[in-house]
Amino acid sequence: MADQFDVIFLGAGPGGYIGSIRAAQLGLKVACVEKDKTLGGTCVNVGCIPSKALLYSSELYEQTTHKFKKHGIEVEGVKLNLAAMLKRKDAVVRQNTTGVEFLYKKNKIEWVKGSAAFIGPKEVEVVDAEGNKRTLTAKHIVIATGSAPIELPFLKFDEKQVVSNVGALTFPEVPKKLVVIGGGVIGLELGSVWRRLGSEVTVVEFLPHLLGNMDDDLRKEAKKIFEKQGLKIKLGTKVVSGKADKKGVTLAVEKDGKQETLDADAVLVSIGRKPYTEGLNLDKAGVKLDEKGRVLIDDHFRTSVEGVYAIGDCVRGAMLAHKAEEEGVACAEIIAGQAGHVRYDTIPGIVYTWPEVGSVGITEQEAKEQGIEIKTAKLPFMSNPRARCNDDLEGFCKIIADKKNDRLLGVHIIGPWASELIAEAVSVMEFGGSAEDIGRTVHGHPTLSEIVKETALAVDKRALNS
Amino acid sequence: MADQFDVIFLGAGPGGYIGSIRAAQLGLKVACVEKDKTLGGTCVNVGCIPSKALLYSSELYEQTTHKFKKHGIEVEGVKLNLAAMLKRKDAVVRQNTTGVEFLYKKNKIEWVKGSAAFIGPKEVEVVDAEGNKRTLTAKHIVIATGSAPIELPFLKFDEKQVVSNVGALTFPEVPKKLVVIGGGVIGLELGSVWRRLGSEVTVVEFLPHLLGNMDDDLRKEAKKIFEKQGLKIKLGTKVVSGKADKKGVTLAVEKDGKQETLDADAVLVSIGRKPYTEGLNLDKAGVKLDEKGRVLIDDHFRTSVEGVYAIGDCVRGAMLAHKAEEEGVACAEIIAGQAGHVRYDTIPGIVYTWPEVGSVGITEQEAKEQGIEIKTAKLPFMSNPRARCNDDLEGFCKIIADKKNDRLLGVHIIGPWASELIAEAVSVMEFGGSAEDIGRTVHGHPTLSEIVKETALAVDKRALNS
Repeated sequence: MADQFDVIFLGAGPGGYIGSIRAAQLGLKVACVEKDKTLGGTCVNVGCIPSKALLYSSELYEQTTHKFKKHGIEVEGVKLNLAAMLKRKDAVVRQNTTGVEFLYKKNKIEWVKGSAAFIGPKEVEVVDAEGNKRTLTAKHIVIATGSAPIELPFLKFDEKQVVSNVGALTFPEVPKKLVVIGGGVIGLELGSVWRRLGSEVTVVEFLPHLLGNMDDDLRKEAKKIFEKQGLKIKLGTKVVSGKADKKGVTLAVEKDGKQETLDADAVLVSIGRKPYTEGLNLDKAGVKLDEKGRVLIDDHFRTSVEGVYAIGDCVRGAMLAHKAEEEGVACAEIIAGQAGHVRYDTIPGIVYTWPEVGSVGITEQEAKEQGIEIKTAKLPFMSNPRARCNDDLEGFCKIIADKKNDRLLGVHIIGPWASELIAEAVSVMEFGGSAEDIGRTVHGHPTLSEIVKETALAVDKRALNS
Repeated sequence: MADQFDVIFLGAGPGGYIGSIRAAQLGLKVACVEKDKTLGGTCVNVGCIPSKALLYSSELYEQTTHKFKKHGIEVEGVKLNLAAMLKRKDAVVRQNTTGVEFLYKKNKIEWVKGSAAFIGPKEVEVVDAEGNKRTLTAKHIVIATGSAPIELPFLKFDEKQVVSNVGALTFPEVPKKLVVIGGGVIGLELGSVWRRLGSEVTVVEFLPHLLGNMDDDLRKEAKKIFEKQGLKIKLGTKVVSGKADKKGVTLAVEKDGKQETLDADAVLVSIGRKPYTEGLNLDKAGVKLDEKGRVLIDDHFRTSVEGVYAIGDCVRGAMLAHKAEEEGVACAEIIAGQAGHVRYDTIPGIVYTWPEVGSVGITEQEAKEQGIEIKTAKLPFMSNPRARCNDDLEGFCKIIADKKNDRLLGVHIIGPWASELIAEAVSVMEFGGSAEDIGRTVHGHPTLSEIVKETALAVDKRALNS
């Protein structure tokens, strides 16, 4: 007989595990199907968490070799122990996966190990690693199976020479030459890690700019800064073929009709991710996909089949852990009869390079496209007293406000701890606040967050410290 | 003949210089009298700025010697070059003082060099270093003369062995033994700097706790952490006498009636600051002081004399640079006929130790005293994924909300970058937001600021990750 639950989450990434926890909090009997050996999905196992651990360690290494002398710290013989650095990263991942496991126990969520496939609209069959089968039924099933890296057809992942985010977290030695295909968030983060550790890194980007649809000023500043750090960046450049053999990887790239050959010890392919719904047997259940292969949902996460929902990377919208988490919470609340809701215009985007990028709301180019009249201001960290204290002077804060009512529409920061500074901007946007609201709010002195205040004042042409 | 201005600011610290800039922006003809060789006052010259520069450099030194191995960074022969560290600090100060000077020129504010004294209610005489005299008159005069460190009667500052914040920024060698009298913000910050650089530091505090009137949980956590770092902390201990000679400083301290002798190479006296109005000739102008020697003002910064105002450390309220700045802005706006206003319940307090402290609103003990029924939650950074990535696991976030309507009343953070994390809490309090407002706001993952969200959710007993 089938095991009966109130709700089954398929996938234990940020969408699925947070959704499971919220559903359990609301009194539902929850199962969560996950085929990996650990909980947490891409984010915890091979995404956000291990990359941030390596980003932090590698930036310390960079600072030691480049910045310490100025601070009066003299070190001799700085040596990288890559094995130790990777070991710490693995330990951090383990803290987080076991953390999720603990939360499952605490909230009485059943982790059903194995791969799920629909065998009916309210029924899935789970097959575990040993081939054991189990049937689960529930009134509500939530697809939260995430995404997978997109592969180049002529350069398949072997996760050693040709790697996705997965292999780029585990190089046993620092590759002498690393080519990163795709200058988005993942490419720039992992490219930065290996550059800091000694790789000669070339980033090849098909678009005429880095960082996808971020604000253009920010994309340009990022390029300038990363090039100064030593990243070689080739924009508007297409990879037309590639070949991996014992000697390494050879790529043919093309820009403005001119071909060039790039040699590398390893290639990171970070050209995007695709929704991952393989093996779910969605046909069987009658769950429809959209034209991009994403599970089609309405504004309440409902798929084409009653009682089946979908959230996170496998549906429309930004592929971000925190977007998936919010959808997990909202979907669980809707299932429990509450009014779950996600506000999509205040979801921050973050890049954990150094300096960092934190961005929320519309960009200047989007405002133009949408015909919104705006006021903007942009101030450099150079003018921020704490940035001076910390000798962290690169980058800027840019604020976009509605010309007619001063309402905050977008905040785009590239600079030290931008990942954390953006939280204030998100909050103010949640309240529908104005640039003046930020300018009138007391900010501790000296803090990096004063740059947000100063820039907000500058929108009204009355910055005090610039 | 006297030089005529619309407004004269006495003192070019954060209150005076920001007030001057705001007044100039509003079209007023502004003079600012400052006797120091550089602009910026205590904060920029011998306070916030140089201390934060040293705090940053010394924390890097501490991390190099204590944390790097785990990150896979092997360094040999780490050596402190104190002269270089102090030199960078001086350069940072210079960037900021010349920055203010630039702003004065840009805004056409006249810096009148010298010491001011009232010679009438709307008239001051300024005497410069060479004894030249000049008389200035204005419809509005703002006293922004700041504060000075309080001295122990039996242990006068020589700024070499017995130092205030001034001397503690310039020790030419690391003192072997340093005693810090006063476990408030300045004592803990500068005590931390020298401990990291090798001093054996003992903090003697008269009160039964560190950090003045901060939240008691936070004060206790701070003590635990700082003791683990190697600070010796003696609470409830009074310094009864002291003597400085060639061999060093000897202090007699007393706790519960028992005396003890402490030897030190240097003593930092950081027992508080007093309003500084010396030489202003306030009598002459008829400007009254309150019982604590502060310039008496009403809610609009007006002193007992029409046209004379006072702001910053020399009036009631917290002695904080950003409080003085806000008062400078508000006072300038009032003088210009606008409705300048400072909201005192959302001024954050920050301690730049490591971990840092960021705090805003009421404490649990204040809630009790005021008879406010509250809900609270407290979560450790140990549970925050980014804290794990950064191996920065100490401290917590505590949130206090009104029991009857969930309104955010206080946020008290001790942990990594608490100085920056507090900005979000201040903003939400400015909007009169609730704990649920924070809990419903998307926070980037993985960020340290997620702890604020999680703690806000925990107030409603529905934390997701804890």
